[in-house]
Amino acid sequence: MRDLLGGKGAGLAEMTRAGLPVPPGFTITTETCLAYFDSGGHLPPGLGDEVRAAMDELESRTGKQFGVAANPLLVSVRSGARVSMPGMMDTILNLGLNDETVAGLARLTSNERFAYDAYRRFMAMFGNVVLGIEKDQFDRVVDEAKQKAGVATDPELTADRWKEVIAQFREIVRIHTGAPFPQDVHEQLELAIEAVFDSWNSKRAIDYRKYNKIPDDWGTAVSVCSMVFGNLGDDSGTGVAFTRDPNTGEKLLFGEYLRNAQGEDVVAGIRTPMKIADLQNSQPDVYAQFVAIAHQLETHYKDMQDLEFTVERGKLWMLQTRSGKRSAEAAVKIALDLARDGLITQNDAVARVDAASLDQLFHARIDPNEQFEVAGVGLNASPGAATGQVVFDADTAAERGAKGESVILVRVETAPDDVHGMIAAKGVLTSRGGATSHAAVVARGMGRPCVAGFDAMTIDGRAKTATIGTHVLHEGDWITIDGTTGKVVVGKLTLIPPPSQPPEWLASFLGWADAAARMEVWANADTPDDAQRARDLGATGIGLCRTEHMFMQKERLPVVQRMIISDTPQARAKALAQLLPFQKDDFAGILAAMAGYPVTIRLLDPPLHEFLPSLEQLLVETTELRITKGESDPVYVEKMRVLGRVRALHEQNPMLGLRVCRLGIVYPEIYAMQVRAIFEASCELRARGVDARPDVMIPGVGTREEMQTTYDAVKSVADEVILAHGTPVPYRIGTMIELPRACVVAGELASIAQFFSFGTNDLTQTTYGYSRDDAESSFIPRYLEKKILKDDPFQVLDRVGVGGLMRLGVERGRAARGDLKIGICGEHGGEPSSVAFCNELGLDYVSCSPYRVPIARLAAAQAALA
Amino acid sequence: MRDLLGGKGAGLAEMTRAGLPVPPGFTITTETCLAYFDSGGHLPPGLGDEVRAAMDELESRTGKQFGVAANPLLVSVRSGARVSMPGMMDTILNLGLNDETVAGLARLTSNERFAYDAYRRFMAMFGNVVLGIEKDQFDRVVDEAKQKAGVATDPELTADRWKEVIAQFREIVRIHTGAPFPQDVHEQLELAIEAVFDSWNSKRAIDYRKYNKIPDDWGTAVSVCSMVFGNLGDDSGTGVAFTRDPNTGEKLLFGEYLRNAQGEDVVAGIRTPMKIADLQNSQPDVYAQFVAIAHQLETHYKDMQDLEFTVERGKLWMLQTRSGKRSAEAAVKIALDLARDGLITQNDAVARVDAASLDQLFHARIDPNEQFEVAGVGLNASPGAATGQVVFDADTAAERGAKGESVILVRVETAPDDVHGMIAAKGVLTSRGGATSHAAVVARGMGRPCVAGFDAMTIDGRAKTATIGTHVLHEGDWITIDGTTGKVVVGKLTLIPPPSQPPEWLASFLGWADAAARMEVWANADTPDDAQRARDLGATGIGLCRTEHMFMQKERLPVVQRMIISDTPQARAKALAQLLPFQKDDFAGILAAMAGYPVTIRLLDPPLHEFLPSLEQLLVETTELRITKGESDPVYVEKMRVLGRVRALHEQNPMLGLRVCRLGIVYPEIYAMQVRAIFEASCELRARGVDARPDVMIPGVGTREEMQTTYDAVKSVADEVILAHGTPVPYRIGTMIELPRACVVAGELASIAQFFSFGTNDLTQTTYGYSRDDAESSFIPRYLEKKILKDDPFQVLDRVGVGGLMRLGVERGRAARGDLKIGICGEHGGEPSSVAFCNELGLDYVSCSPYRVPIARLAAAQAALA
Repeated sequence: MRDLLGGKGAGLAEMTRAGLPVPPGFTITTETCLAYFDSGGHLPPGLGDEVRAAMDELESRTGKQFGVAANPLLVSVRSGARVSMPGMMDTILNLGLNDETVAGLARLTSNERFAYDAYRRFMAMFGNVVLGIEKDQFDRVVDEAKQKAGVATDPELTADRWKEVIAQFREIVRIHTGAPFPQDVHEQLELAIEAVFDSWNSKRAIDYRKYNKIPDDWGTAVSVCSMVFGNLGDDSGTGVAFTRDPNTGEKLLFGEYLRNAQGEDVVAGIRTPMKIADLQNSQPDVYAQFVAIAHQLETHYKDMQDLEFTVERGKLWMLQTRSGKRSAEAAVKIALDLARDGLITQNDAVARVDAASLDQLFHARIDPNEQFEVAGVGLNASPGAATGQVVFDADTAAERGAKGESVILVRVETAPDDVHGMIAAKGVLTSRGGATSHAAVVARGMGRPCVAGFDAMTIDGRAKTATIGTHVLHEGDWITIDGTTGKVVVGKLTLIPPPSQPPEWLASFLGWADAAARMEVWANADTPDDAQRARDLGATGIGLCRTEHMFMQKERLPVVQRMIISDTPQARAKALAQLLPFQKDDFAGILAAMAGYPVTIRLLDPPLHEFLPSLEQLLVETTELRITKGESDPVYVEKMRVLGRVRALHEQNPMLGLRVCRLGIVYPEIYAMQVRAIFEASCELRARGVDARPDVMIPGVGTREEMQTTYDAVKSVADEVILAHGTPVPYRIGTMIELPRACVVAGELASIAQFFSFGTNDLTQTTYGYSRDDAESSFIPRYLEKKILKDDPFQVLDRVGVGGLMRLGVERGRAARGDLKIGICGEHGGEPSSVAFCNELGLDYVSCSPYRVPIARLAAAQAALA
Repeated sequence: MRDLLGGKGAGLAEMTRAGLPVPPGFTITTETCLAYFDSGGHLPPGLGDEVRAAMDELESRTGKQFGVAANPLLVSVRSGARVSMPGMMDTILNLGLNDETVAGLARLTSNERFAYDAYRRFMAMFGNVVLGIEKDQFDRVVDEAKQKAGVATDPELTADRWKEVIAQFREIVRIHTGAPFPQDVHEQLELAIEAVFDSWNSKRAIDYRKYNKIPDDWGTAVSVCSMVFGNLGDDSGTGVAFTRDPNTGEKLLFGEYLRNAQGEDVVAGIRTPMKIADLQNSQPDVYAQFVAIAHQLETHYKDMQDLEFTVERGKLWMLQTRSGKRSAEAAVKIALDLARDGLITQNDAVARVDAASLDQLFHARIDPNEQFEVAGVGLNASPGAATGQVVFDADTAAERGAKGESVILVRVETAPDDVHGMIAAKGVLTSRGGATSHAAVVARGMGRPCVAGFDAMTIDGRAKTATIGTHVLHEGDWITIDGTTGKVVVGKLTLIPPPSQPPEWLASFLGWADAAARMEVWANADTPDDAQRARDLGATGIGLCRTEHMFMQKERLPVVQRMIISDTPQARAKALAQLLPFQKDDFAGILAAMAGYPVTIRLLDPPLHEFLPSLEQLLVETTELRITKGESDPVYVEKMRVLGRVRALHEQNPMLGLRVCRLGIVYPEIYAMQVRAIFEASCELRARGVDARPDVMIPGVGTREEMQTTYDAVKSVADEVILAHGTPVPYRIGTMIELPRACVVAGELASIAQFFSFGTNDLTQTTYGYSRDDAESSFIPRYLEKKILKDDPFQVLDRVGVGGLMRLGVERGRAARGDLKIGICGEHGGEPSSVAFCNELGLDYVSCSPYRVPIARLAAAQAALA
């Protein structure tokens, strides 16, 4: 009934049915909420009567009366959505108090201080949530009262002080609304219900849903519950507990209990609560009952529960049960334990862990042994921890980053002009902007930790200082951010790099996942180290080995540049001959690391000018030389020659230019060298008994003729090398499907190619007509803000457009070649919802970066189970 | 039977059947040719016997005997493909002559000079075509003989001189082949047949087919025909004639007759032939017979015929009839006349004219009143005539072109480095390279006249001279090229610009076309002049009015730049307010010119930085200023500010960047200004009684959300302006379909948009992943050479890939909105085969540049008739 009653309401109903001690109450459904919105903010007709009837029932259950001073019934009014949105919507406690019932409550409890404390809490909450008065105004009155009384904490204020506070609250309400504080308890209730509904559409709730991808049209339920009080003395109290440790997953009650307090006091953190286990000493009966209930609820829900409870004068009341939020580590361990205890199946365990959350395990984290004070918490915009020296502008970040210094770029917000600084920084911290701000989107795209919207920080751009509470940071001061949690810490902390191998518990869990999955998980790796890491993390193949990264390495780049700048095929051939041994070594290392598994090697892909000196820099340098040294200076002459060649190779839109297989067709000698390197390495490995399994992938094919020409060229060199070595090497030749036209003519391509790998990065670029380099730092953030895009299509595969073309490609490819192996090697291969879509399309494997292999393994399993 | 017998063989067979005087002969089919190729160059078994039997039949028909000196049968062996490929394949005449039969022929004709002349002709042709000896070697002997004899022309040489020539020919053959000239006439015939087959695969034939899109697998037929001789005295002769004037289409016999000559003498142009009409005076009976036959053939074939004939001692022999090649003007006029004479229907007339040929009528031409000597003929690589001063390098071309001078860029061949010079030049002339050379492809792409592969020209790059025959041209000398015909003329000629209105005969003809067509033809026009021209040429709407060209105009660019460089929305608003009156004037002019017809105005499309100063130039300028003036120089400071903004707007791949509707979403004020200008102009026009019909087109939409957002924004401003003016304006809001994703989600888009227009330039770019700017000057020429691409997809619409996506777009769009208006406004809209495809897809209109409107009208009609 979660959809209708919300998580909270459903939990309360379920506990009531199980005979647990729950304060009587009732829930107004999410449907009512939607009807309220549809009618433009009017409660549906008849609801008033139903609420009145339910309140009558509550009165009879509790023996109290709503709005009657003699024995007043007080209620809480809480929101509750299908899924928990902690702190995002509003709650009102102690509703039913007015100037008369508060006196009755004082008499009844013989505790005037308690009663007026309850009333002032109610007035402040109601004033804020229902009447829209800023919380600060109420808080200021309480602060002044404490100052006046010379005390530090609320509990020290006497009943009379609270009465004075209440008088001032009345005045605030009167000034603000032009009317006295509502005394009619039924009016209070109706207004409160409407306010809770309205809180579904508060900005923070909308932002939260957007970030967490919760639909806007779910609405919230409203639970009305009779109040119980934990602040009626030392035999009262309030607590929160998890049935297991939400950080480690360990099976023990984990939580806190605050004696003589209401729930909000725990949250406010004014007094230090005791550990839940200590309740055993002070109230052993209550503790024993709570332990039993916790066990019962966990067994009932077959999951770790997050419980809220109150003890009122020695009697335990359960206020909430829900599946508890937990760390990724805890999620996996709990799922393993529950399955081992027979409460759930192995597949249930696999299905239950959020695949994306495993990402936490593979980012740098703050060393848990570090003692530190959290300066504040911002939005966890891009995961991972980073520590570095504060810099306030992108140019400085770029300059110091280039020197190898660790810097954190600290800005009010970022703009496209800052991207070079973000690249150079270890992490990004902004004081403004949400989960779809420029900083957040760009940082996630480039894998930089980022804490955004950290509004506890004030930046003075001219003075170059950032103020966080009492800390004033200058450029060069150390700071640590945790983009996984949003935490910001002043100072340098030790970070723990991500593990290269999964710990034993994760390995077991992923083993269960593998058993359930249909698709294999491969990895994208360009070096032997990466390949080894991918294998350690469970990859059963390399789906994309990019050969261009090898070209970029320092000692090779000059040779590559000679090759490109050479004016004759002869000179080019000479440079290529020098590159051959490098490439052969690279391939040998990767093929050996993945022995027994396929390694898909993509032939050269990027435009050649990516390997050349920057045109902009050459323009500046040649201009300088011309003026200072003259046009006959030999350095000038040589630089002008290079400039001429760079300009000739310069393209308006290199992404759509002379690259991919076009390179291999226009300069066949480049691909020939690469293929020779692959097969010489393979032959030598196999001669030594290493099971090298190279697959050659041709990028960017768009026509049958391109496929045939490159296929023939590759096959001819491969077979020649194999024949010369006399060592058979099993291999396949396939293509990357990364152009819309390739999807349309997939049948023709598959009649030649032996495998397809969807290059969804490029396919997304051409399907949308977005250049990733440009779009993610310019209009995509704006599009996400304006809801033109639901997700960044470079992060989450677009099922309709890009996916529609992929579907075409799969259907036509398989129709032409039944056993066509099809995978994906775009970055989507490590994103769970994209993995699910690939499973739906019938792909054979997904390939992703090594650290995302565990996520993909779990996502593949969940897709198969779904 | 053309497919099997070739054009020539079929014509001969048809004439024979009609009882016309045709020398007896037979034809070996194209199938035999293909079998010959398939077997790797062996004549099929049995062919020898069939040929022998056919020769026996020929002997009995002619009463002559093959290889017998007493009465020798001589034959011609000619190629003949399905379509005429003039001069591309080989022919051998007088086959059957050897040392014995030549003597017999001399006796029989009592004309020794004739006989040995015939023999030397045969030997030279056979030596060249069959034995592969260079023609020059034979020509040189004849030249020497004339020198020695002190005569100027061949006919002046005596029989004895010819015998000496023949002796030397024998020696040439012996040296070259190591064997005597073949004396066995059957061996001669077999070798000749093989040689004609082989000539199908000569380089020039292959190039010709590639350029004219004739399939390589058609093969050629071989016609063997008994010889008749036009050089047996003054009652003999040879002639060629068209049944109508192939230049003007006028109904009169048009051709030439050369007395006492063989066909090749006419072609060689040694003696000046007489006009065909003059034959009436010298041989009235023959002339009357020929006139009757010409009429009979034209009536039979229902088309203008190109005839070859020989008169042998007063007897007329028809050697060939075929549909004659003609100018576009003649084609139209002949079709009109034939239809008016009732020989063909109006629709036949429409179907018969090559739509693409109408292009000739709308390019600059050389004034027909100009008297000039043609220096030579190269490949007609890009149509139109151009006259200008010779320059030898692209930089000079760019420099002088920028000054407004008319230059012709003359190069051995062009490369991507030359493109800026090609843009600045009036035309391009190269001495090397074919129809798919860089020069040809790029010049066609940019609409520059180009003559390529003009190998009569030698270029000395260092001396900066071009030698054509006796002319030595220096930089600055005038030259005229005609890219329509391939002619090159030394000197400056008067050119006739294309007409802005179709002449009456063309208007009538296109009227017939319009009656047959289903699709409308609209035009792409950005100015009132262009719109008027389009209307004059028959456009019934504007399918694409690009608003950015208006932004580029000299007096507006500074305002546009202010708008872009402005840091605040306020400053941007101010600049936009200044642009509004300009845009309003532009729109008013175009809407008025097209009154009564729809004008589709596309909102701003290109990336903003296209309007800004060049980044490269700014880098050079700021570096210069920094060194010479210092960093505090105010000009430097301002330039650096501009540089900063230009760099911030700089994109890696502007084609895929912040452009199209993305601009309108990120900067809504730009589109709002444009829409305001459109509707203020429309309201004011309509208030004055002018039937303005604006349609607003949103470019580059890829998602439903983009469509909805921009649709709402446009509608709101449009309706606001209309309301304020109180003048109703009918209008539609639609979108350009130019992204693969738009085709996939066309259904969602059509639920909002009221029309689609396929922007196939951009759609081709993204479907193939080719940047047109880069690809057409780099790898597309290579792809065409290597046959990876059959056509440049930016010239001829790719039916499979781009077309496949268009089909999806049409189906889904129409499914969502039955009355969705769909057109095309890419440049393909004026290319006949693409127009045919659009018709097949069910589009409502095609839109093309004004001068291509007549082509599109005809192509639309032909598509409907097909």
